Amino acid sequence: MEWGSTRVICGVTVEELVPRWMKEQGVSGGWITAEYAMLPYSTLQRKARDSTRGRIDGRSQEIQRLIGRAMRAAVNLEKLGTRTVWVDCDVLQADGGTRTAAITGAYVAFQLAVRRMMAEGKLGESPLLHAVAAVSVGIVGGQAVLDLCYAEDAAATVDLNLVMNAAGEFIELQGSGEEATFSERQLAEMLGLGKAGIAELLRVQREALAGG
Amino acid sequence: MEWGSTRVICGVTVEELVPRWMKEQGVSGGWITAEYAMLPYSTLQRKARDSTRGRIDGRSQEIQRLIGRAMRAAVNLEKLGTRTVWVDCDVLQADGGTRTAAITGAYVAFQLAVRRMMAEGKLGESPLLHAVAAVSVGIVGGQAVLDLCYAEDAAATVDLNLVMNAAGEFIELQGSGEEATFSERQLAEMLGLGKAGIAELLRVQREALAGG
Amino acid sequence: MEWGSTRVICGVTVEELVPRWMKEQGVSGGWITAEYAMLPYSTLQRKARDSTRGRIDGRSQEIQRLIGRAMRAAVNLEKLGTRTVWVDCDVLQADGGTRTAAITGAYVAFQLAVRRMMAEGKLGESPLLHAVAAVSVGIVGGQAVLDLCYAEDAAATVDLNLVMNAAGEFIELQGSGEEATFSERQLAEMLGLGKAGIAELLRVQREALAGG
Amino acid sequence: MEWGSTRVICGVTVEELVPRWMKEQGVSGGWITAEYAMLPYSTLQRKARDSTRGRIDGRSQEIQRLIGRAMRAAVNLEKLGTRTVWVDCDVLQADGGTRTAAITGAYVAFQLAVRRMMAEGKLGESPLLHAVAAVSVGIVGGQAVLDLCYAEDAAATVDLNLVMNAAGEFIELQGSGEEATFSERQLAEMLGLGKAGIAELLRVQREALAGG
Amino acid sequence: MEWGSTRVICGVTVEELVPRWMKEQGVSGGWITAEYAMLPYSTLQRKARDSTRGRIDGRSQEIQRLIGRAMRAAVNLEKLGTRTVWVDCDVLQADGGTRTAAITGAYVAFQLAVRRMMAEGKLGESPLLHAVAAVSVGIVGGQAVLDLCYAEDAAATVDLNLVMNAAGEFIELQGSGEEATFSERQLAEMLGLGKAGIAELLRVQREALAGG
Amino acid sequence: MEWGSTRVICGVTVEELVPRWMKEQGVSGGWITAEYAMLPYSTLQRKARDSTRGRIDGRSQEIQRLIGRAMRAAVNLEKLGTRTVWVDCDVLQADGGTRTAAITGAYVAFQLAVRRMMAEGKLGESPLLHAVAAVSVGIVGGQAVLDLCYAEDAAATVDLNLVMNAAGEFIELQGSGEEATFSERQLAEMLGLGKAGIAELLRVQREALAGG
Repeated sequence: MEWGSTRVICGVTVEELVPRWMKEQGVSGGWITAEYAMLPYSTLQRKARDSTRGRIDGRSQEIQRLIGRAMRAAVNLEKLGTRTVWVDCDVLQADGGTRTAAITGAYVAFQLAVRRMMAEGKLGESPLLHAVAAVSVGIVGGQAVLDLCYAEDAAATVDLNLVMNAAGEFIELQGSGEEATFSERQLAEMLGLGKAGIAELLRVQREALAGG
Repeated sequence: MEWGSTRVICGVTVEELVPRWMKEQGVSGGWITAEYAMLPYSTLQRKARDSTRGRIDGRSQEIQRLIGRAMRAAVNLEKLGTRTVWVDCDVLQADGGTRTAAITGAYVAFQLAVRRMMAEGKLGESPLLHAVAAVSVGIVGGQAVLDLCYAEDAAATVDLNLVMNAAGEFIELQGSGEEATFSERQLAEMLGLGKAGIAELLRVQREALAGG
Repeated sequence: MEWGSTRVICGVTVEELVPRWMKEQGVSGGWITAEYAMLPYSTLQRKARDSTRGRIDGRSQEIQRLIGRAMRAAVNLEKLGTRTVWVDCDVLQADGGTRTAAITGAYVAFQLAVRRMMAEGKLGESPLLHAVAAVSVGIVGGQAVLDLCYAEDAAATVDLNLVMNAAGEFIELQGSGEEATFSERQLAEMLGLGKAGIAELLRVQREALAGG
Repeated sequence: MEWGSTRVICGVTVEELVPRWMKEQGVSGGWITAEYAMLPYSTLQRKARDSTRGRIDGRSQEIQRLIGRAMRAAVNLEKLGTRTVWVDCDVLQADGGTRTAAITGAYVAFQLAVRRMMAEGKLGESPLLHAVAAVSVGIVGGQAVLDLCYAEDAAATVDLNLVMNAAGEFIELQGSGEEATFSERQLAEMLGLGKAGIAELLRVQREALAGG
Repeated sequence: MEWGSTRVICGVTVEELVPRWMKEQGVSGGWITAEYAMLPYSTLQRKARDSTRGRIDGRSQEIQRLIGRAMRAAVNLEKLGTRTVWVDCDVLQADGGTRTAAITGAYVAFQLAVRRMMAEGKLGESPLLHAVAAVSVGIVGGQAVLDLCYAEDAAATVDLNLVMNAAGEFIELQGSGEEATFSERQLAEMLGLGKAGIAELLRVQREALAGG
Repeated sequence: MEWGSTRVICGVTVEELVPRWMKEQGVSGGWITAEYAMLPYSTLQRKARDSTRGRIDGRSQEIQRLIGRAMRAAVNLEKLGTRTVWVDCDVLQADGGTRTAAITGAYVAFQLAVRRMMAEGKLGESPLLHAVAAVSVGIVGGQAVLDLCYAEDAAATVDLNLVMNAAGEFIELQGSGEEATFSERQLAEMLGLGKAGIAELLRVQREALAGG
């Protein structure tokens, strides 16, 4: 997934088994787990690997949990069958909006994986519900701005991540003023910009999948 | 902080030094760090301690980062002086809404700590900006519901956490449909209910602090 | 459990399964495991959480092993049935004697848990043998002193923890002179004081359980 | 140190610096730290290494803390100078009483290290106070027994570890009835046996050091 | 670096400081550290991340130490200046020979980084000594074979990794018969094939750098 | 195993079960796992324990993987039966060549373990193929030198470890020029010296086993 100078690898792998807690709790169907990492050369100053530090940092955990929820909301887990789908998002180059780029690209990769499973006869019908895309909106200098690149991101006082589907429904809405706040009017402006951005991304996804 | 059957200990401790990154980056003023944990007997089925498992689980990390951001948005860090304030939230009993109870209680504990620092002459003026409170709203059976207890929480398809201040501004807005979605109309309903809840909580905080 | 300015939460949780090693070694009956932690605001200077440091410190491990042994000596494990009882002791405020307060309070919590299991028909008869209590005695300025509070504790050259049961038998006896020693006469004095303290605590436990 | 079939390597290493906490708290003099481990082939069934499991088990921590306290009680830390002495005890073969064998052997190794430091002019006078030795006593079949080997140890209902010095003073006294108890009369019997054992060990230490 | 179906990202990052041990030991010049990881989707069966498992596996450690040694042998560390160069090799797709592909690609990335540092005036002259490349040779069905792809690799009884420079000197030679052995004649055959392969790779590197 | 001033304990323990991956992949026969550690007093400057640092260092991992491969190449794993043999090598004193001393000693310990298993009727025939020994050769001052002690080792520019069996076959060949290189002629010289050293060691092993 390329998005301005942001580049994220989105990989989907299928395992023919489900997590232990599903078996223990008797939950049927499948599961989707996401993992997110920034490669050490993705930032201007080298980012130490989580494996070297011995644990995943809080921000990465938060993002991979978000990607997982977004993908699970796009899929009928019952129809996925007794399997786990791993969604891996690795950031090659980070210039703002890596989490929303990851979600938008992950949906495309998920689609391609579903097509292959159907071609191989592993799935009779697609478990996908609606296409899912995500954008990031912010307030920079009092103005709502779509698709924050890193320079804007660092200047933004407020950051809103929006995950929506092709039916116009919200999946996630995360607005946060790091040492700042936002008003109801600003929220409305950001939601308006965000929905327009989502619509555009859903169109780009369709084209990519049509050509794929 | 008691909230229905939810009970959270909110403790504030002051250290007269700042994190290393602030010194390295030459950032002046103070810092606020939050930690959140569920005590093992807080849930019906015993929750294993993070210390025994050797690492903090993803959900707790997410919550403690949220509490930290909320508190930092309530405070002028420059006026806090060169010190770190630790906000510790330990859940004694969990019946839904532990993260919003933690934030609402933490603000009161923070106030009390500021008063003591002023009484001890460590602070000349209060660094607090506006009071901060948080509520949780959800959609249960298609209806927006305020203040989810655990039974409702488990039944809820959508969960929205709202952190606002006494000036009516948003600090955090986190809406998430775990394997579900929500419409724009439902978002508006949840925001309406949430704002009313926040107003009520700010009133309760004022009373508690007046009596304290 | 409140004990001077020392306050410890003692929680008992029952799990209807036993540790793997019991199954592997074919040991019948139940098991009791204790965990002990100091909450970060329990000391004058904030104590970093074990979960943040990634491992349990040596002192906490030593204490939780002691609590576990004391509780197992109070119970007929065979009669407990195929279950694990977790005893959690979390220190809210530490002013000396936290380990002995934890044991004394844990026995009361254990009793209450046994009563509930009997009321629920999970246990036909009580697996409890004798009540168990613990005290701390020390040598301060050459004098044996019962129930050390923190100020005395820091001044003490010798510290003796005594766990006994209502039949007047010893369960644990841990005397240690941190960079100091003690004579046989001092040992006898400490044991005498300790036994009197135990007798008093067993009386308080009985009253608490009678009123409970 | 050989003791029946128990064999423990006791190594002493001197580092010309002190732990950070001593510098931070302005404590003068030196420090002694002990580490204890069972080598994987020391037991009949291979014992997994702590390094492979990623952390030190609770029992080893307890023992190495005990060895450290015993050595520090044998030494005037002020006279040791600004240095850290590491006492490493590695169990080659375990047949009961490894912790008491470790302490008894560690004292001899410490003496030898002091002699060398004096010969090298690093120490003007010996910082050693009194010789220290340790024994283990137990109750087997109702009888107090000295120097438990593994077969007796497993059969023992009560285990008492005794650390004393050449002045007849107690340094540590740890009596524990794992799922059992002991009476005051049994305590007296164990103390009597233990003191006789200590006297004998102090004699053996003197001979070893005279011949060394 | 693409090599048959093997694809490895080789990234070089420069930090203007050296590891602490160099400062402590008074070693002048710079340092080169390598890190190697397989991305989870690089293998047919998904490979769990080291960060999730909490530690780097033995094979990855071995490989990243090898890459580091190979790069350090290609560079005059004194001329590198007081800086650390990080060489990151992440395997996108693994089809045999990932460690030799990583070394061969890393040299090219290192060259490019040196060129940029010279262009930016950070380096007056190049610290590079000779170009370095690596190949993997094996014995499959009794025959020496160059450039093992995964299918051959799994069938190979012996695997020899060869790192050489443009002056025809050996830097590393690692021959290993996993549950097998090799004769002196087979060693000679493998060395012959390997040297030819190295020559070819050095030519490809030169072309890539000429075009770059 | 004593080797100049280098002393390594080689212990072999047999477990009557195999690693999980063998069961999962349906691999029959047995397995051999090696672990290597340097005891803290084995070096002039005390070496911190891996267990205290919480993980095994890269060098130790590399060496224990090498020992494991060498032992597996000496044994017909099929004939070993469904069991795991643990080979533990602990360095008591390190004066160069600890890894090759460990391998050479481990073979003797393995032989003795096989003899006992045959005497106890657990093995009908020996699973050993050929005796295995290892030496270390280096280039010091331009000269190939056998059996590097620590003083030479630190001066060596190139270090070659050679593992061979009694049939004159190579098992491992690891040549490495830490910040240096070696020519083909030097490789030949080192191989010549190494083979002579191996022959001598195999003779010493035979004598030890004849006398054992």
